[in-house]
Amino acid sequence: MKVELVAVGDELLIGDVVNTNASRLGRMLTDAGLRVTGVSTVGDGLGELVEVLRIAVDRADAVLITGGLGPTSDDRTREAVARVAGVELRRDPEVEQWLRDRYRDTNRTLTGLGLQQADLPEGGRILPNDRGSAPGLTIEVRGTVVYATPGVPHEMAAMVGDQVLPDLLRRSGAPAPRAQRVLRTVGVGEGVVAQHLEPLEKDLAASGAVEVAYLAEPGETRVKLTSTGPGGGAEVDAAALRAYELLGDCVYAEGTESLVAVVARLLVERGATLAAAESLTGGLLAATVVTVPGVSAAFRGSVTAYATDVKTSVLGVGAALLAAEGAVHPQVAREMAEGVRALLSGTYGVATTGVAGPEPQDGRPVGEVHIAVAGPEGTVTVSPHLPGDRDRIRTLTVVRTLELLRRTILGLPQEPAREFTG
Amino acid sequence: MKVELVAVGDELLIGDVVNTNASRLGRMLTDAGLRVTGVSTVGDGLGELVEVLRIAVDRADAVLITGGLGPTSDDRTREAVARVAGVELRRDPEVEQWLRDRYRDTNRTLTGLGLQQADLPEGGRILPNDRGSAPGLTIEVRGTVVYATPGVPHEMAAMVGDQVLPDLLRRSGAPAPRAQRVLRTVGVGEGVVAQHLEPLEKDLAASGAVEVAYLAEPGETRVKLTSTGPGGGAEVDAAALRAYELLGDCVYAEGTESLVAVVARLLVERGATLAAAESLTGGLLAATVVTVPGVSAAFRGSVTAYATDVKTSVLGVGAALLAAEGAVHPQVAREMAEGVRALLSGTYGVATTGVAGPEPQDGRPVGEVHIAVAGPEGTVTVSPHLPGDRDRIRTLTVVRTLELLRRTILGLPQEPAREFTG
Repeated sequence: MKVELVAVGDELLIGDVVNTNASRLGRMLTDAGLRVTGVSTVGDGLGELVEVLRIAVDRADAVLITGGLGPTSDDRTREAVARVAGVELRRDPEVEQWLRDRYRDTNRTLTGLGLQQADLPEGGRILPNDRGSAPGLTIEVRGTVVYATPGVPHEMAAMVGDQVLPDLLRRSGAPAPRAQRVLRTVGVGEGVVAQHLEPLEKDLAASGAVEVAYLAEPGETRVKLTSTGPGGGAEVDAAALRAYELLGDCVYAEGTESLVAVVARLLVERGATLAAAESLTGGLLAATVVTVPGVSAAFRGSVTAYATDVKTSVLGVGAALLAAEGAVHPQVAREMAEGVRALLSGTYGVATTGVAGPEPQDGRPVGEVHIAVAGPEGTVTVSPHLPGDRDRIRTLTVVRTLELLRRTILGLPQEPAREFTG
Repeated sequence: MKVELVAVGDELLIGDVVNTNASRLGRMLTDAGLRVTGVSTVGDGLGELVEVLRIAVDRADAVLITGGLGPTSDDRTREAVARVAGVELRRDPEVEQWLRDRYRDTNRTLTGLGLQQADLPEGGRILPNDRGSAPGLTIEVRGTVVYATPGVPHEMAAMVGDQVLPDLLRRSGAPAPRAQRVLRTVGVGEGVVAQHLEPLEKDLAASGAVEVAYLAEPGETRVKLTSTGPGGGAEVDAAALRAYELLGDCVYAEGTESLVAVVARLLVERGATLAAAESLTGGLLAATVVTVPGVSAAFRGSVTAYATDVKTSVLGVGAALLAAEGAVHPQVAREMAEGVRALLSGTYGVATTGVAGPEPQDGRPVGEVHIAVAGPEGTVTVSPHLPGDRDRIRTLTVVRTLELLRRTILGLPQEPAREFTG
């Protein structure tokens, strides 16, 4: 069953909003065994929306629209669906009453534009929305089922999870799953990972049983091994085994477990705790750590020592060192890590210092970064030079810090073995 | 000139990667006065890619493809462009030599798959890539100019900014700009903002000179006023004046200045500094503050007191208070804000505590949040109940904290006037 997504809104085209709905839906539908074959983003204009919907309806078995259902004049999705279906819009009296009650309860005035949220193309069915005022709808158009949901991410996700997905699965029957394994690597680039897997790729190209795909994210590369037909678990397992041999300790996890989740799990398993001291990452390392549910068992807290004197007054970094070398120095990272470990009584203390840009600092170039991990066995530091803009340098610094911590906890060498770095 | 974007990659369809390229390009092209009329996302399969490209080429004056140019077997963009153009691929000897040098310099082996990066559709032109190994390309197809750039965001952005955009602007001539103003509001929902602007919308609907669009983001709503034709500055200015009257102090800025940038500017202008103490936001508040370039003049630093005892040992929150009330309490927020203000010698200290979920904490429900701002005039607190999941509650807490700080610095009431909250 081919599913196409259509995202509606000028704000998506002009880049005011990132289309996270598409990736979230992609994940939800893929996890359920459905196949997303395309995503179209279109503006608020009725003509373009009708045209894009028509193409999607002709091409796919199911079309899922997000956005354009609200109470403002640029919300035209209902009208567009009615046109593509070749039917009229009718006002649904039950929804109208529900809207009137809802607006009254929240002391708001329901205007004509608000009332359009009760309109439904003839032959369609309302999808109730218990998180907002705009209901969704579904209708069959020339053998293709069309769903429209609000664009507000949490309303969309609830409506799809509770109503759209069960309906889609009922229609598609249970899709035959293909075997898949995903190896997650860190510390080496996509090209290097692909190069190491060339022998495996060559064998797989000959057998045709397993596909290899690479997915690069900042500092990480995922390797996805998927059987080309239903089943194929044994072939995928054999390929994964070979990939492990070829990639060594660059593989930090399988499946959906992120690097920060692995680090949190390693800490919790050992009854160990973490404290962080941040300079250039400015809180991003801590904010990344706390995305893991349950991490409060292992995370003590952090200090963002953004002003240089705070590094001394709170973390105890030597004032003479800072005066002589500035804040961007491996020894500063070391003393920050050791200082925060003592201050917050953590098993491990980690620290970041460096230049995120846009300007050089203390005579050090943008991208110079020093990372330290202090633990029961002592302190280690790495000093990468990282590429990119302010955001990217910070993101890569967080990945490198988590990776150094992972290697320290597991007793691995500080960096991947030479043969894996090319 | 209509520009369509085509993003290539299975990882986008299955939701492994969020399509930030589309929003970034949308912003770049819109800022340059060009009009993005659609975005299509398609997988790695050659057939679908050719079909989507064909439609985009027929519909638009320019098509910008991102992704599918790399050295792996699922990179098929060059081949698809050649098919749509009806020409053959030829290997470019200069690019081949450049690739051989580049791979040799970085001790990598250039294989057949790597060499496909030197292939170019006949009649096309290479777009050099100085940040990665995959060059881009451009070619005219039936009167539409097609560009292909790498999918790696920073490579894409550099190639578009340096090469694609200048070429596009040369082709389009200077587009006639339409007048536009964007009012940024915080603290009230999109529906409430729209409701307050109904009198303005009614007048504008009659005159037809200015369009109103709403853009909701977590905790914020932007109001975009755009003239319907070229020029129209006076009409937009008059509409903006009216909107200011109707929205009062909920408007915090105009144009592209974000809430955190406004707060940073207010601090710097006053020679004031900020210190933050975070519990449920776990570093996100500090990480948001440091996204503003130049904020180091005003930001002292922060303490993430994730473990309850750290609130006492580092920030000086009363141990008896924590024992009696738990960590989720307005008085805890107050003492955290005052504690971090003293610890880091800031003009203002801000603090967040609450329950981000997924589980209740200390007998308090998910979404209960307490925020405090301590300053020279004393300390204020607000205690909103925030909706959504863990991420959303944290994001909304950061927005509410920045808004309370903005109001405190400016001497405004703690919350928008009653008439604006509906």
